[in-house]
Amino acid sequence: MKTRKSRVGPSREGEVFELVLDRLRAVGYELLSVGDIAAAARMSKATIYRQWGGKPELVVRALRWRGCLCAEDIDTGALPGDLKRYVALLAERRDPELNRAMAQAVHRDPALLEAVRTELLGPGALVTDRLLARAVARGEVAADCKALPYVRSALLGAFMGQGLLGQPLDGDFVDGYVDHLIAPALGL
Amino acid sequence: MKTRKSRVGPSREGEVFELVLDRLRAVGYELLSVGDIAAAARMSKATIYRQWGGKPELVVRALRWRGCLCAEDIDTGALPGDLKRYVALLAERRDPELNRAMAQAVHRDPALLEAVRTELLGPGALVTDRLLARAVARGEVAADCKALPYVRSALLGAFMGQGLLGQPLDGDFVDGYVDHLIAPALGL
Repeated sequence: MKTRKSRVGPSREGEVFELVLDRLRAVGYELLSVGDIAAAARMSKATIYRQWGGKPELVVRALRWRGCLCAEDIDTGALPGDLKRYVALLAERRDPELNRAMAQAVHRDPALLEAVRTELLGPGALVTDRLLARAVARGEVAADCKALPYVRSALLGAFMGQGLLGQPLDGDFVDGYVDHLIAPALGL
Repeated sequence: MKTRKSRVGPSREGEVFELVLDRLRAVGYELLSVGDIAAAARMSKATIYRQWGGKPELVVRALRWRGCLCAEDIDTGALPGDLKRYVALLAERRDPELNRAMAQAVHRDPALLEAVRTELLGPGALVTDRLLARAVARGEVAADCKALPYVRSALLGAFMGQGLLGQPLDGDFVDGYVDHLIAPALGL
């Protein structure tokens, strides 16, 4: 095995995160071992621990690396378009195997649940908040509009409801949901 | 063991369904066996098979028995009140252990997923549809209101979003969600 430097560069980091996500999908969180990841990445366990901390930190970092969507990546110039684009991007990135693996893991591990909420779900909700804040800043939505705090949950409903009922989350549904439910509530 | 009649009455049926739900919560779907249920209920396996069919049918029937909420049980006289009451009743009946057991099971068994959709989620969605139809019938909401098809998913968002983010689904949140997001979209 080659000697590696203690700092791991971004592209190497991406490879390790891909390995972590693949293992998560395949065997779940409980059976994922840092030793297996180290072997597959041809890296020492010590390097992994030094770079990312333990297994929970490594997993949360990998999920975060995969999921990073920024409000700055979404800019259609108007709020309804931004919200539709955001849901479309989330739908593209849907990963049921990964969601299932994590749903089981966080049930058994409250600290991991807290990390997932802080590191993943919180920032996810922030994207919606940022899209809304931009719309308020350009005068599209009133700053005191009472629907604002509820848009996050409404978007989540569009996303999860169709999945639960076995119906497609296609463009028609998302367009109708934003245009006929969210937009009127925001006074658009 | 006493000899039992082949027909199982409603109160006895309720006892069996409670046993099924307790087992589901405790060991999950895969490890639940009709033999264990029969033994705990002091009933023959043959009686169970005759009365309810196999394990998937028994489980879906038990879930349905537990979950039966009718639009007729909810009647505050106005749509916003009805929707709030409906979400409050769903929140009361929340059963995370049971949800988790079923989420894992339907993943492994597409036929069970189909049965859950048809027998449980479909009728659940129908409650919302019925509350909306009543509001249309009494002239509260326009029959051609374009937000109508999206209210189901919006309610689901209220319900699931708070859980995911670890926030309470309390009366204040539900009132705000219905009054400031759903009601304006429906022209109320």
